[in-house]
Amino acid sequence: MAKNNNTISGFPEWLPQGRLIEKFMLQTLEEVFALHGFQGIETRAVEPVSRLLSKGETSKEIYLLSRLAARNSNETESDPNKQLGLHFDLTVPLARYVEENAGHLTFPFKRFQIQKVWRGERPQEGRFREFVQADIDVVGQETLPFHHEVELPLVMGEVFARLGLPPVVICANNRKLLQGVCEQAGISQIEDALRGLDKLDKIGPELVKEELLKAGISAEGADLLLAVAKISTSDPQELRSQIDALGLSGELLETGLNELCELLTEGERQAPGLLRAELKISRGLDYYTGTVYESFIQGHEDLGAICSGGRYDNLVSVGNKKYPGVGMSLGLTRLLSRIFAANLLSVSRPTPTAVLVAVNNEDSRGESLAVAQALRARGIATEVAERPLKFGKQIKYADRRGIPFVWFINEDGHEVKDIRSGEQVPADPAEWLPPTEDLFPQVFPAQANN
Amino acid sequence: MAKNNNTISGFPEWLPQGRLIEKFMLQTLEEVFALHGFQGIETRAVEPVSRLLSKGETSKEIYLLSRLAARNSNETESDPNKQLGLHFDLTVPLARYVEENAGHLTFPFKRFQIQKVWRGERPQEGRFREFVQADIDVVGQETLPFHHEVELPLVMGEVFARLGLPPVVICANNRKLLQGVCEQAGISQIEDALRGLDKLDKIGPELVKEELLKAGISAEGADLLLAVAKISTSDPQELRSQIDALGLSGELLETGLNELCELLTEGERQAPGLLRAELKISRGLDYYTGTVYESFIQGHEDLGAICSGGRYDNLVSVGNKKYPGVGMSLGLTRLLSRIFAANLLSVSRPTPTAVLVAVNNEDSRGESLAVAQALRARGIATEVAERPLKFGKQIKYADRRGIPFVWFINEDGHEVKDIRSGEQVPADPAEWLPPTEDLFPQVFPAQANN
Repeated sequence: MAKNNNTISGFPEWLPQGRLIEKFMLQTLEEVFALHGFQGIETRAVEPVSRLLSKGETSKEIYLLSRLAARNSNETESDPNKQLGLHFDLTVPLARYVEENAGHLTFPFKRFQIQKVWRGERPQEGRFREFVQADIDVVGQETLPFHHEVELPLVMGEVFARLGLPPVVICANNRKLLQGVCEQAGISQIEDALRGLDKLDKIGPELVKEELLKAGISAEGADLLLAVAKISTSDPQELRSQIDALGLSGELLETGLNELCELLTEGERQAPGLLRAELKISRGLDYYTGTVYESFIQGHEDLGAICSGGRYDNLVSVGNKKYPGVGMSLGLTRLLSRIFAANLLSVSRPTPTAVLVAVNNEDSRGESLAVAQALRARGIATEVAERPLKFGKQIKYADRRGIPFVWFINEDGHEVKDIRSGEQVPADPAEWLPPTEDLFPQVFPAQANN
Repeated sequence: MAKNNNTISGFPEWLPQGRLIEKFMLQTLEEVFALHGFQGIETRAVEPVSRLLSKGETSKEIYLLSRLAARNSNETESDPNKQLGLHFDLTVPLARYVEENAGHLTFPFKRFQIQKVWRGERPQEGRFREFVQADIDVVGQETLPFHHEVELPLVMGEVFARLGLPPVVICANNRKLLQGVCEQAGISQIEDALRGLDKLDKIGPELVKEELLKAGISAEGADLLLAVAKISTSDPQELRSQIDALGLSGELLETGLNELCELLTEGERQAPGLLRAELKISRGLDYYTGTVYESFIQGHEDLGAICSGGRYDNLVSVGNKKYPGVGMSLGLTRLLSRIFAANLLSVSRPTPTAVLVAVNNEDSRGESLAVAQALRARGIATEVAERPLKFGKQIKYADRRGIPFVWFINEDGHEVKDIRSGEQVPADPAEWLPPTEDLFPQVFPAQANN
């Protein structure tokens, strides 16, 4: 059981064994991101409310802060530039960080950021009020080559492959392609069109069509959009021929289609099976301008998208300078909640400790401490027994904690016992090493139980 | 410059090079804690206000949360069990976590926890509204042997030694000793006495004496307390003789004195110079019952205590069961702010990237990507050049980013250039390794500049 008795709905906590699995994931993410040259940053948990409200549509989900002392004295903060709220994503903070520090950063700025975010929305399965997001973004100065739109899903794909989870598919679309379709179909209500598509999986094509008609889109336009939204393929040739079959063309559409085809081609070359064009994907947020992504775990599509993002050209600017970017955000807590619920990963033991050094009597605790320190100096996590009980009880103590080895200091030398096999051998604290797989707790794919 | 243009006072942020130094410290902390068998946990950022107010005296510093949507609709939460606030330390959350999960933990529960905490107090030099604390605690079930009060400062001492900072001294006292002194001096106002001592460094002995007298403590009692508070030694014999010289004895005092002497003796044996008895140290919080600690960096005493804590017997209970503990808390952000201000640590480069693979032309980007992926597969952080510019410009691009090596794909083979020395040698992506010190950014003690 990795989940604990959580007492505030939407604010998950894990037991130590769950935290080890989370930590394994965090380390995997950081390692892969760093291998690809992303610089890690953290931003403060708070932003002025004015800034939180300036992008996107999540205003209702913001947690405001007030000081208890100020509330008692009836001070209230009404200036939205001074009123602070907890950040609800890591994109708004990134935009602000780049604005403030552009002069100290090198561009393209490749950054990763893994932090908790907060949303005051109704908690439900897979939705939390406090959760960890892991974001990568590449932000250029004035320009940003398209190849970064190919780079990001491949980096995330490498993360997924290393985590030992069921395969992940990153579904992609392109806003230029969708806008091109709208142009062709005479649809000027582009935001309504995108928002309609975004609801397709939730409410189905009939209701989406109703909404599109209500927004003033023609029946022909709506039908064309819904036909485009059905296109789903990982083959660039097929993508192109299906678009052709709908009689679609135009410059913006061509640009978007070329980009999407290049993404599929490069994706197939570097990570076969990872990427698929899924033309119903539009992403609700209005700041995307190129490729958009949503990722799903095979067999766990009901969990929803676990990693999303896209290209944005107009999110960040300083004076006259534009900073176009592309980013992806992985919902780590949502992923973890499923990993725990479906038992997708296990950990070999709940404690970092590999060795318990037994204590013969309280006066000789110093000798046991010295052995422990010698083992730690060589990277072996070691505890010293709590009390000089009978050895059988000290072994039980190790067993209860999940510690695999117990070290004994005898008059004629030291011995170490693997308490799982019962094997006991002479050992020297300056030389003995546990088997590699016992050095640290190991995380591995477990038998799924549902 | 590791610090950024911070725009909200009390909420510090760092540039990527500063974050690398923070990350080095976090990794050192986690590694040392795990080597000593501490299990890592995280708790949610919020607690019910009723719980935040139940311990300590920081009620005025609490940040309350409210939902923007609820505020707009004039809902307000008046139930203190439902009203949420941000945690201001990691001790209150630990107590709650142990209460909730006692049945799933093994005791003594050795846990480390490194998280941001928030306090709405006035920001000033070394004081923040958002900051990272790194806590270790050992929590027993019903009992907890004294040796953990020796263990904790030694673990923190190992952290300090590995960080490469100026030497740290952990000053210790013992509440039983202080209470024994109060008993002997006929002082029943123990909390007032402790609170008075706690102010000694801020307001001096005359004003402390005035406060003690105001609290109803006799002049003789106050003088005796102030005489005890002057005792400062790392020698257990001297500690004992100075206490004797004041004519002090009694059972509780003896117990406390013995514990403090044992701490000094064991400390000197395992980590010479780390520990000192400093009898003016009392710690304001009323839940401490044994050893108390405050740690100072030599030459940076003006920064205040960077790592404090103590033994508590009555903080946690479940039903009739008591869970006595001992804990220490390191103020990482305060420490970092001084490290940056006084330039105590440096990092060899601001980016994880060791190698930039040059691109000959856009059509051959795939070859460069393949080299990058081969290097990453062997743990070498690698980027591919942004654009197929002239090689001189690609080298400048690497230089600007702080990347030490540039990789060239020539018709007759590959070469790698160390752009610092200019040395260029043939290289194979399946075999070449950078010098160990260039593999990852290195953090090292820097020349102090103030």
